[in-house]
Amino acid sequence: MSEVKEKGKLAKSASYELIGKTTAEKNEALAAIAEQLLLDQEEILAENKKDLLSGKEKGFSDSVLDRIMLNEKRIADMSGAIGQLIQLNDPIGEIIETIHKENGLLIESKRVPLGVIGMIYEARPNVTIDAATLALKTGNAVILRGSSSAYHSNKVLVSSIHRALEKTTIVKDAVQLLDDTSRETAKELFHLNEYLDVLIPRGGKNLIDTVVRESTVPVLETGAGNCHIYIDESAQPEMAVRIAINGKTQRPSVCNAIESILIHEEWLKENGVQLLESLHAKGVKIIGDETICKLLPDIQLADEDDWYTEYLALTLSVKVVGNVKEAIDHINQYGTKHSEAIITENKQNAEAFLTYVDAAAVYHNASTRFTDGFEFGFGAEIGISTQKLHARGPMGLKALTSSKYTIHGEGQIRG
Amino acid sequence: MSEVKEKGKLAKSASYELIGKTTAEKNEALAAIAEQLLLDQEEILAENKKDLLSGKEKGFSDSVLDRIMLNEKRIADMSGAIGQLIQLNDPIGEIIETIHKENGLLIESKRVPLGVIGMIYEARPNVTIDAATLALKTGNAVILRGSSSAYHSNKVLVSSIHRALEKTTIVKDAVQLLDDTSRETAKELFHLNEYLDVLIPRGGKNLIDTVVRESTVPVLETGAGNCHIYIDESAQPEMAVRIAINGKTQRPSVCNAIESILIHEEWLKENGVQLLESLHAKGVKIIGDETICKLLPDIQLADEDDWYTEYLALTLSVKVVGNVKEAIDHINQYGTKHSEAIITENKQNAEAFLTYVDAAAVYHNASTRFTDGFEFGFGAEIGISTQKLHARGPMGLKALTSSKYTIHGEGQIRG
Repeated sequence: MSEVKEKGKLAKSASYELIGKTTAEKNEALAAIAEQLLLDQEEILAENKKDLLSGKEKGFSDSVLDRIMLNEKRIADMSGAIGQLIQLNDPIGEIIETIHKENGLLIESKRVPLGVIGMIYEARPNVTIDAATLALKTGNAVILRGSSSAYHSNKVLVSSIHRALEKTTIVKDAVQLLDDTSRETAKELFHLNEYLDVLIPRGGKNLIDTVVRESTVPVLETGAGNCHIYIDESAQPEMAVRIAINGKTQRPSVCNAIESILIHEEWLKENGVQLLESLHAKGVKIIGDETICKLLPDIQLADEDDWYTEYLALTLSVKVVGNVKEAIDHINQYGTKHSEAIITENKQNAEAFLTYVDAAAVYHNASTRFTDGFEFGFGAEIGISTQKLHARGPMGLKALTSSKYTIHGEGQIRG
Repeated sequence: MSEVKEKGKLAKSASYELIGKTTAEKNEALAAIAEQLLLDQEEILAENKKDLLSGKEKGFSDSVLDRIMLNEKRIADMSGAIGQLIQLNDPIGEIIETIHKENGLLIESKRVPLGVIGMIYEARPNVTIDAATLALKTGNAVILRGSSSAYHSNKVLVSSIHRALEKTTIVKDAVQLLDDTSRETAKELFHLNEYLDVLIPRGGKNLIDTVVRESTVPVLETGAGNCHIYIDESAQPEMAVRIAINGKTQRPSVCNAIESILIHEEWLKENGVQLLESLHAKGVKIIGDETICKLLPDIQLADEDDWYTEYLALTLSVKVVGNVKEAIDHINQYGTKHSEAIITENKQNAEAFLTYVDAAAVYHNASTRFTDGFEFGFGAEIGISTQKLHARGPMGLKALTSSKYTIHGEGQIRG
């Protein structure tokens, strides 16, 4: 039996045990892991150093090395995040719906774990802890398939988890790490329908696209964000500029940052130059349509591809539109259904935008940067879903659950 | 542009219009379709006759021809079912969750349409009407890809729908039927991620398996039902026999019928022969393990494959187990996560069964035949989901919806 199948089988078996664990038992296991990470700090840093050395030898960039790197603070942060997770409500067991039928049947819909979660991710070793603890909190077993660049770090972190679980009532088989980080193990996970209930890719667009395209196991997709702000005719200039700068520059590398601004032609006449100059002053490179290019020097003319591009950098495309309808149509054509905002004082236009723009989160007079599980108050975030089935937008603990109907009778049969 | 792409584009465009339609507008469209089907009855029957004749020439079995066949009563039933659909609550627009943030942001999660639903189905032309009207009720556009064996029937039914919609505010492009029913169009639908938000296969196991395996568009899977009854030591004999007979014989060809009975060894000693004789008397063929085979003549010995088999006929596998744990393990290994029942007077065993059996619907002292959208009181049924994401068990109108966060601010930016 292959490693993937063997560990899949063990995880499945553990998942059945997890179903019956109480919130207290699961929280005790989480507390044990939080403690163990601090106890094992030296060992973790030593193993992490192996990954860093090997990464340097392979010529990884500083930013990649930074993603792999653990230090005392990062270990303390991981441990602290588990402390916060313990405080969150356990969604498992919640009664979602109760139906009393005339024939006396009592039908209840209850929240239950998904079962076994497969997680495929890239460099960051903190995802190992994050994924394992979110899974355990929601009563799920997990199979982790990290990157070879964090091999030693992931291995020592999962050893810590296993050491911690051995002190608790949660079976350590609930957390499985694949030693083999080749492409073949990823492919095997894509088709491990027998043991996996869901597969979650965490990483870049290529990884996610591959998983969505190839996996027969259902996928929770956390997608790209080609997010827009539309500045309507009646937008308050100061507010529009503030939100534009926040959306583009506060953290340009994340999915809820904006990549494009659409501007109403009338607003542009009065305020366009000031907006563009404010963005320039913050180091933002502007790529504009023909009208925008005429406003300031050094603006590059946008081509069709630019409207599709998620720059994830201090680059921004800017386009002029005639009305809110044009803005909505543009966003529905070029957007990635993530986060979209309208800045306007016109309630009717705001309502049209919020209704007709097809995205996980639509904003009126606020920055798209708020699309985040912590900002929404979920206390945890698995990722931000841009798909429409199961979960849409920031995914908290509930996204790692399913439901089940339990029906209580006294011998009823169907007539 | 291919037919699939062209119709996909039209449906997508229609789906954006549908988002803004009121419940009254959607119900008027449904009423118009219900009326039009009756007005067009002669034409529908004439076109249906072409499919029946061509089916006879091709040597289709009587049961397949019966599935294709329409008559006055069936058309009246389709029209009547639309009348019932009109009465159901419109789930669209429902506020699922409201979050007030300290920074003044008002975050609402609202129920919205999925967008465009692709439906791939087999012979029955009534699915054409069913799928189109369920989609319209929930504000979705739909692309229908029926079978060549019902080509003329599907075509005339969609013409009726279009004639009806032309009298209403709902654009007729919302309902698209593919003329080309070749394998190639199905394959194109599997990868039409640009225009399709979900793909729903309705039909046999082969069709569903193919769609799940090949589609990159998210799939709503309606799966097979290898359903069990476990008769525990303390089960009331009369109740157990009644539920077993109902589960197997009331309608053997459906997914919530039972395929297997597990019997506690102690219950078997007192009541086994009576149960088996009662089943025999109803024409049920028994396939049993070694213990069962010794109880009555003419019982075939089960092999490993039998425990996996969904007979969908008056055939039943029967196995003896030592306790509820063995029953649960057997079901989790061989079942299809559909509907499972325990018959017992022991509350602890009932609780263990309901908790640890991994299925969409788990019953205590009732027949598995109740797993049905109408029996559960949903008033409509898209199918019965055996997957764990998005929807599990009988799917009513809500399964055809997604959610969307709308956020109202006064200029908030992220710090």
